[in-house]
Amino acid sequence: MTTTTPLPSWRDGAAKSAVLEFVRSVTERGDSFVPPEQRIATFDNDGTLWCEKPMYPQAHFLIRRWGTQVKADPTLAERQPWKAVAEGDRSWLASALDHLPELLKGVTEAYDGITTDDFEAAVRAFFDTVQHPTLGVPYTHIAFRPMCELIELLHAHEFDVYICSAGGRDFVRVIAHEMYGLRRTHVIGSGPTLEYRDGAVYRTRGIEQPIADGAGKPVHIWTRTGQRPLLAGGNADGDGAMLETARFALLIHHDDAAREFAYDTGAETVLTRAGERGWTIVSMKDDFETVF
Amino acid sequence: MTTTTPLPSWRDGAAKSAVLEFVRSVTERGDSFVPPEQRIATFDNDGTLWCEKPMYPQAHFLIRRWGTQVKADPTLAERQPWKAVAEGDRSWLASALDHLPELLKGVTEAYDGITTDDFEAAVRAFFDTVQHPTLGVPYTHIAFRPMCELIELLHAHEFDVYICSAGGRDFVRVIAHEMYGLRRTHVIGSGPTLEYRDGAVYRTRGIEQPIADGAGKPVHIWTRTGQRPLLAGGNADGDGAMLETARFALLIHHDDAAREFAYDTGAETVLTRAGERGWTIVSMKDDFETVF
Repeated sequence: MTTTTPLPSWRDGAAKSAVLEFVRSVTERGDSFVPPEQRIATFDNDGTLWCEKPMYPQAHFLIRRWGTQVKADPTLAERQPWKAVAEGDRSWLASALDHLPELLKGVTEAYDGITTDDFEAAVRAFFDTVQHPTLGVPYTHIAFRPMCELIELLHAHEFDVYICSAGGRDFVRVIAHEMYGLRRTHVIGSGPTLEYRDGAVYRTRGIEQPIADGAGKPVHIWTRTGQRPLLAGGNADGDGAMLETARFALLIHHDDAAREFAYDTGAETVLTRAGERGWTIVSMKDDFETVF
Repeated sequence: MTTTTPLPSWRDGAAKSAVLEFVRSVTERGDSFVPPEQRIATFDNDGTLWCEKPMYPQAHFLIRRWGTQVKADPTLAERQPWKAVAEGDRSWLASALDHLPELLKGVTEAYDGITTDDFEAAVRAFFDTVQHPTLGVPYTHIAFRPMCELIELLHAHEFDVYICSAGGRDFVRVIAHEMYGLRRTHVIGSGPTLEYRDGAVYRTRGIEQPIADGAGKPVHIWTRTGQRPLLAGGNADGDGAMLETARFALLIHHDDAAREFAYDTGAETVLTRAGERGWTIVSMKDDFETVF
């Protein structure tokens, strides 16, 4: 359906061929043909569609918020994560995932009690004003160009493409269209518990369970689409369950220290499983002609 | 965009004119134009898109299941709702909503522990074999034809149309395409808590909170679409919150005892509110040329 050469930012090689061959096989009439209404694709966001280092963009967003909160109410500095922000304690923040109960309190108390519209305005302001700390560009410029092209290719072949992010659904929704060409209806992810009253939806101090990570991803994907993904893409251990439900699984390998970041931490298990199951591993260094 | 006359099963009148005028106003260039990506429509299902009397189709489905369960395990007859089914106690079943804790146990224990695929097969078998008790047709034939035409009209004008049912999302999904032309991705509704393991999604013994009724509807709609409905349709008090979030609200009034059922019970509040707010009330008797 596309007349231009597909995936121009991908280098020729096994990964690109596998993707193109799979898309051809399910969209051309034949034994492996899949009708358009069953062509669901799901992608993790952090580290799969955009750069997640040196910290998750949403972590940057939250740290700024905690800073604002602790300035307005210095007593917050008595507890984490506000304490770490007030004291500039980077080591606590870097290991925040090891302090999950405190971290989650920070996440849920950052924006509880406000409407989804007001939250959206705060997210919009972040993307409009804050730059990535090392790449020196706005966060709206940190999508991986080859992955955006893959989404385009899938759309051109009548796939219904969703993001399934362990991070905040309502954070990613704000930029899904401008960065990935995805409608806000097509963002699946973790979110706060919500409450409706007097014409507005309010964020409350809880997190919808399960979060959209690990075994929670197939649950969220079922809840939202009623289907398994035909194609799925991820980069971390938390994507493993989603990848194993897909007919075609793609794993982004962060091995490009020069143009992005090189790290296997948090992806050890999924990298092993990808090898065992014959998933398509994409080397950012070798398979991407252009990264951003 | 449609060349044939729209809404052929609707009689000319205030309701039909209001719908056509609203659709025209938001889709033709002008002050009230709304871009396609913001054109979300949401419809309740029971009593809005299909007939909900003399009992909800899903209630019929569950009563059959409880019957099967109590035959296999007669000790279940010691508690409700299996007791009522075993004893043919129609009055308990008719007032089941007044026994909510027992009813919910019945709902969650009817199909807990099975995969979403197995549940789907059970639902499919129901629709393939069971007839509506008074209309004498399969349940797949009880959609309101004028409402199916309205969905078609909205699709033709690039609306993204969703069902938002207080009933089971995974029940309605099975027939959404054949009955309404809606993809399974476009069914929002209540559902069990789910768990993923070993490649499959399992139903577990809980109900996702909130259920998609009353104030839960705008929450589910936000979670799934990230938007307010531009147009919404309902018929009962549980639809009131959803209707008040929409720019155009449509209320189906069941006043046609001859062709369907006539009842205001459970819709008293929303009928009053519709009058106060100028919502479009659709009289099934006067506004529908054909019902089924």
